[in-house]
Amino acid sequence: MDFSYTSRTSQMLDRLRHFMADQVAPLETRWQRTLDHGGNPWDLPPGLEEAKQAARSQGLWNLFLPDRHFGAGLSNLEYAPLAEAMGHSHLAPEVFNCNAPDTGNMEVLVHYGSTSQKETWLEPLLAGSIRSGFCMTEPDVASSDATNMQATVRVEDETVIIDGTKWWTTGIGHPNCKVLIFMGLTDPEAPRHQRHSMVLVPIDTPGVRIVRKLTVFGDYDPPYGHGEVEFDNVRVPADHVIAGPGRGFEIAQGRLGPGRVHHCMRAIGAAERALELMVRRGLDREAFGRPLAKLGGNVDRVAEARMAIDQARLMVLRTAWLLDEKGIEGALSEVSQIKAIVPAMLQKIVDDAIQIHGGAGLCEDFPLARLFGYARSLRLADGPDEVHRAQVARHELKKYRD
Amino acid sequence: MDFSYTSRTSQMLDRLRHFMADQVAPLETRWQRTLDHGGNPWDLPPGLEEAKQAARSQGLWNLFLPDRHFGAGLSNLEYAPLAEAMGHSHLAPEVFNCNAPDTGNMEVLVHYGSTSQKETWLEPLLAGSIRSGFCMTEPDVASSDATNMQATVRVEDETVIIDGTKWWTTGIGHPNCKVLIFMGLTDPEAPRHQRHSMVLVPIDTPGVRIVRKLTVFGDYDPPYGHGEVEFDNVRVPADHVIAGPGRGFEIAQGRLGPGRVHHCMRAIGAAERALELMVRRGLDREAFGRPLAKLGGNVDRVAEARMAIDQARLMVLRTAWLLDEKGIEGALSEVSQIKAIVPAMLQKIVDDAIQIHGGAGLCEDFPLARLFGYARSLRLADGPDEVHRAQVARHELKKYRD
Amino acid sequence: MDFSYTSRTSQMLDRLRHFMADQVAPLETRWQRTLDHGGNPWDLPPGLEEAKQAARSQGLWNLFLPDRHFGAGLSNLEYAPLAEAMGHSHLAPEVFNCNAPDTGNMEVLVHYGSTSQKETWLEPLLAGSIRSGFCMTEPDVASSDATNMQATVRVEDETVIIDGTKWWTTGIGHPNCKVLIFMGLTDPEAPRHQRHSMVLVPIDTPGVRIVRKLTVFGDYDPPYGHGEVEFDNVRVPADHVIAGPGRGFEIAQGRLGPGRVHHCMRAIGAAERALELMVRRGLDREAFGRPLAKLGGNVDRVAEARMAIDQARLMVLRTAWLLDEKGIEGALSEVSQIKAIVPAMLQKIVDDAIQIHGGAGLCEDFPLARLFGYARSLRLADGPDEVHRAQVARHELKKYRD
Amino acid sequence: MDFSYTSRTSQMLDRLRHFMADQVAPLETRWQRTLDHGGNPWDLPPGLEEAKQAARSQGLWNLFLPDRHFGAGLSNLEYAPLAEAMGHSHLAPEVFNCNAPDTGNMEVLVHYGSTSQKETWLEPLLAGSIRSGFCMTEPDVASSDATNMQATVRVEDETVIIDGTKWWTTGIGHPNCKVLIFMGLTDPEAPRHQRHSMVLVPIDTPGVRIVRKLTVFGDYDPPYGHGEVEFDNVRVPADHVIAGPGRGFEIAQGRLGPGRVHHCMRAIGAAERALELMVRRGLDREAFGRPLAKLGGNVDRVAEARMAIDQARLMVLRTAWLLDEKGIEGALSEVSQIKAIVPAMLQKIVDDAIQIHGGAGLCEDFPLARLFGYARSLRLADGPDEVHRAQVARHELKKYRD
Repeated sequence: MDFSYTSRTSQMLDRLRHFMADQVAPLETRWQRTLDHGGNPWDLPPGLEEAKQAARSQGLWNLFLPDRHFGAGLSNLEYAPLAEAMGHSHLAPEVFNCNAPDTGNMEVLVHYGSTSQKETWLEPLLAGSIRSGFCMTEPDVASSDATNMQATVRVEDETVIIDGTKWWTTGIGHPNCKVLIFMGLTDPEAPRHQRHSMVLVPIDTPGVRIVRKLTVFGDYDPPYGHGEVEFDNVRVPADHVIAGPGRGFEIAQGRLGPGRVHHCMRAIGAAERALELMVRRGLDREAFGRPLAKLGGNVDRVAEARMAIDQARLMVLRTAWLLDEKGIEGALSEVSQIKAIVPAMLQKIVDDAIQIHGGAGLCEDFPLARLFGYARSLRLADGPDEVHRAQVARHELKKYRD
Repeated sequence: MDFSYTSRTSQMLDRLRHFMADQVAPLETRWQRTLDHGGNPWDLPPGLEEAKQAARSQGLWNLFLPDRHFGAGLSNLEYAPLAEAMGHSHLAPEVFNCNAPDTGNMEVLVHYGSTSQKETWLEPLLAGSIRSGFCMTEPDVASSDATNMQATVRVEDETVIIDGTKWWTTGIGHPNCKVLIFMGLTDPEAPRHQRHSMVLVPIDTPGVRIVRKLTVFGDYDPPYGHGEVEFDNVRVPADHVIAGPGRGFEIAQGRLGPGRVHHCMRAIGAAERALELMVRRGLDREAFGRPLAKLGGNVDRVAEARMAIDQARLMVLRTAWLLDEKGIEGALSEVSQIKAIVPAMLQKIVDDAIQIHGGAGLCEDFPLARLFGYARSLRLADGPDEVHRAQVARHELKKYRD
Repeated sequence: MDFSYTSRTSQMLDRLRHFMADQVAPLETRWQRTLDHGGNPWDLPPGLEEAKQAARSQGLWNLFLPDRHFGAGLSNLEYAPLAEAMGHSHLAPEVFNCNAPDTGNMEVLVHYGSTSQKETWLEPLLAGSIRSGFCMTEPDVASSDATNMQATVRVEDETVIIDGTKWWTTGIGHPNCKVLIFMGLTDPEAPRHQRHSMVLVPIDTPGVRIVRKLTVFGDYDPPYGHGEVEFDNVRVPADHVIAGPGRGFEIAQGRLGPGRVHHCMRAIGAAERALELMVRRGLDREAFGRPLAKLGGNVDRVAEARMAIDQARLMVLRTAWLLDEKGIEGALSEVSQIKAIVPAMLQKIVDDAIQIHGGAGLCEDFPLARLFGYARSLRLADGPDEVHRAQVARHELKKYRD
Repeated sequence: MDFSYTSRTSQMLDRLRHFMADQVAPLETRWQRTLDHGGNPWDLPPGLEEAKQAARSQGLWNLFLPDRHFGAGLSNLEYAPLAEAMGHSHLAPEVFNCNAPDTGNMEVLVHYGSTSQKETWLEPLLAGSIRSGFCMTEPDVASSDATNMQATVRVEDETVIIDGTKWWTTGIGHPNCKVLIFMGLTDPEAPRHQRHSMVLVPIDTPGVRIVRKLTVFGDYDPPYGHGEVEFDNVRVPADHVIAGPGRGFEIAQGRLGPGRVHHCMRAIGAAERALELMVRRGLDREAFGRPLAKLGGNVDRVAEARMAIDQARLMVLRTAWLLDEKGIEGALSEVSQIKAIVPAMLQKIVDDAIQIHGGAGLCEDFPLARLFGYARSLRLADGPDEVHRAQVARHELKKYRD
């Protein structure tokens, strides 16, 4: 047992942090200024493409992808601390081409994509020249139970016909978003885990309609956005199905482990940023003759934040290690655990940080309001807390049943 | 001891609820549709003025004002359940001319206003033909400690000169907002509670500048809005000072008790709405073969919501009763208690309601996201939870100290 | 709506509190000293009988019993504040002949007892010359679900034959405990709520065996005690059945409402005592140059205790009022609510009070350790929190289902 | 970074677990039976000495002691999982001669003891033939602030004179307890950290009086016990001072890190046992047609227990690793963190486990009531949670202050 990062991770982390300070932080500031001055929030943030080129030229690119041929070849455990560092800014993942859902989509294409799919979609995604969306959750059913899914993917000869309405398709508002991975029901009679398919759908295919962009607590989260997307008799060639019909569930499972590690580590980075803001504000401002940080229960709140972050980080790192060592089957309880632990932890810390900021914490002057929306969404995205806790309990009960 | 509402309250409550169902609910729906279709959110909500006229003609007007001459002559305890009913819609308070901060401002003018101030400002406020703002919190200091206040109100002969920056001036974005009550430091050498003054400042006075509207979790909260307002060498006649220089603190204290009862009862109404939404959604949607409401810990969450609401309501009603019986001096701990209890209770219930709604709870399809912003702000508005808890503890410790 | 106690209640409360201070507090101190010096904990506490006589002669006797003929004729609402006052000492209920389970047992006999049952058992109970036990919970099944009950009450001609093992029969260790009310299954084929019977069983009936006294966190809770009691072919005349066979469930329901109000009000009295201890200790002791009460989060904990107690009290008082006004059918959700709220509230406050006392809070030097055991048991006694919350949720869901 | 145990740890853990199952579990059962049948709880548990001999002969002895000469030579990180395994039974630490406070006392003697002190006290402690106590906390002051200490250690020529009252001296009731380490004030004028001394005091020295044994929630915790001990003009030779006068604080600091790791890992073992009991009971018993484990919020509680334990374990292991790598100076925040996290976690899990057991969880039929007392004490022992959280916050604030 050893709790130190490998020298490779340490070195990359060091370079990444410098890049964050030198290039990403100013980018975020400039972007906020653009928004404050009424710039079109759906345009590309100024300087973003330059920052991406710089990241790529410095080898800080596609770090999430363990595949040595297509990506950086880092293990989950090696990448995790880098994801945490990226979590300090919501623009960082794109700068390093490590943004969701592109990461998951690229992984899918690496493992399951045909040669032609790789050429058409994986390459520009790896190059950061396009972005992608993922269409799974549906507005009309409780999507926490995957068997509720109503959208359909019908295969007719050489054509696939797609129907249904999806929402919470993140990134749909980005000007570079060019392709969607759509999941739907192909064969309701097939064995339970072979009923669904995933299909690549170019965003300009006839019948694809962005019904609206959704707000999160009133915020559209530009330039990414979250969309409700209608698919009305959308037709694509049958070779757009990934890995063939009926393999949707299998592919979805494969996305889960690493994706949750990425999400969670970024959320931990965000929590560190919130804690730093909490402490700095608590030291800067005084009331009743003492700095806020030392008044009443604030001492407890700072301590609890530190303890919660450090515990959560170790859990995620261990989960990354388990994924590396034993694969998803050896980490099923753990990937659910981190998904239940980390977003709730982040929400609590952001809430406390807001409180110490007073009204400033609610508005655009600090990233806290945005972080709150991010944390709150994460408690629902990729399964609500309740489903993850139920999964954890199921594993626990299984130990004593037979 | 008797826990039933008086027949007067019961009758008014009945009429008010009918009005809410018949006129306010459709108004809210129409307003949401207007916003969804890109209508200017800062225009008056369509139908608002008509609803106000209807409310007025039916005697559902100025119910908050205990003064028999100017208002409805209801006690705090009689008004409280009506405020709760209004809390079911964020447009309701304006419809009934019971919206903050106008309510507090009108109370101030009733008690402390000169004849001329009453004529100029109180009458149109009572008529609902104008609205007003309140300028107290400042961006550059911890406003939870009132002695930190930096804005100044200098009296020079017949003129008052006002300087400083205020923020979180709610209602500033409303097209009818015409006057601000500004609080500033007049004499730093005076006894501690005689240093500040309150002044009526017409919003179009030279030197008054709305620097920006503030977002709450990215939402501008139209058509009311929360503003940052700069006062740069603003000059008004000395007779605009309310009750004379040095009485700002005294006036502020008087606002507190009833204002907190109003806020808290509305928040309880909002909590009832959130709980209703939670239960309805929980019964409507199924996962894993059962309605969401019956899955796992959701049963506990529904029960806890009910228990928290009912406890909070009794506390606020008892506080209203104490205010009626003994005045603010007899209810100091209680008005702090309800301010610490209710907004936190509302936030928790809204959070749970969001969770059961899934992604729908985050976006504009349900009022939950807006209610969350409302609850979260209320934990800071009019003093953060921490200050109220400290006040409660102070009273508790005093019992045993001699 | 009126939150003041009636003058009758206020006067009785005043007298009761004086009695508590003058007679009960010294009794408790003497009892603790007796225990500290190795006196037999199962003997009657010295002075107890004298205090009972004094209480009786002053009219502070059987206050719990609303029946004017047998008891004091107070309503639930009038009695509730007196029960709270009694909750400050665990010996007080016996002094005033208001101790559980005798109170419930007496109520049962008043309402359902035959003339002969009243003569034999009710009269000495009313006189305080004997005490009684209640045998419902069973060790071998989850008693939270009453249909799990395995004990049987078979009627054969003029004899009733009782078999089964019960536990958590409180008061069984008291030297005056002379009779048990036993509940068991009579007819498994009858309609669900007519299957059980309640029988009066003199404690010296052959076949009744106190298997052992149970500890609560290692404490036997003398001189009351909680027993495991075996009933092996116990035979009593058929006229010992209360109200006839098959009415056990009906009788049990009737006990619930007032019993829970009594329990909860006493627990609130206990919480007030814990809070007083917390604050006094917090003011008496210093660390790091300040009284403990003002260090860190202790201010929050004191405030939260005050707010929790005051909310809980109002809930219980309102439930008592509902019981008076509408009977148990009109207060089903509420009696479950208070049972879920109050014991958990007491446990939290006692836990915080222990923490501020340091090691002293764990041991016999303060009543806190005993109060903790009391609070923790109360979260299970008469149904675990979970069952009460489920009941509350059931009522809530019913509002929207049809 | 590597989360697997070394093969050495894995092998020892395997052997230790077998020993726990084969020898310690039966020992605990026999001991409980002895207590149930009225055996003298202060006698040695039957079979204890035999088990100790077996453990010693199998090399499962003094595993806590990193010193290769005196102990097993394991690092903190290597020992930690073994301590967890021992935490499954409260008798286990003594069986393996790894019980507190002997462990800390032995460490002190290894590092600071003179040759003669080692001969007289360390050797029999290492052999397990005697046991020892530690006298630090005082009844009359808030001991959370060490500067409050009132007991004195005066050096007069060749004699040391000891006065004061200590309490919560754990293990004092054990028949083999022969020596105490006493801490007191030697020189109030010395620099703050050089005022105190530690002295070895044979328990039969004239003037040492065990005033009483203290209960924890009514339980004396035999055969160990917690004592209040009076030292009245107790005289021992000056060579009984450990490391010389004025070094008490320095020695106390040195005990802290490893001691907290041991405590916390044992508490994690206890939490695992509580969780196992919770799940087994939850699967064994049914109510309302389903096993308790699947009713309502119990699923959440099981999941939260698993997540809390796993997070806490990683924190403690990392802290052990930090102590090994950087010493106590490099782990100051972390040793406070684990002390604040683990006991509270254990208390919560035991509380939930009690709840699912119903009344059985409160009494002697399950180890839960005892575990509760253990957890609750641990939140005060070696500094209350509040002090540890304050320490953690201090470190956090220091990062941003300059």
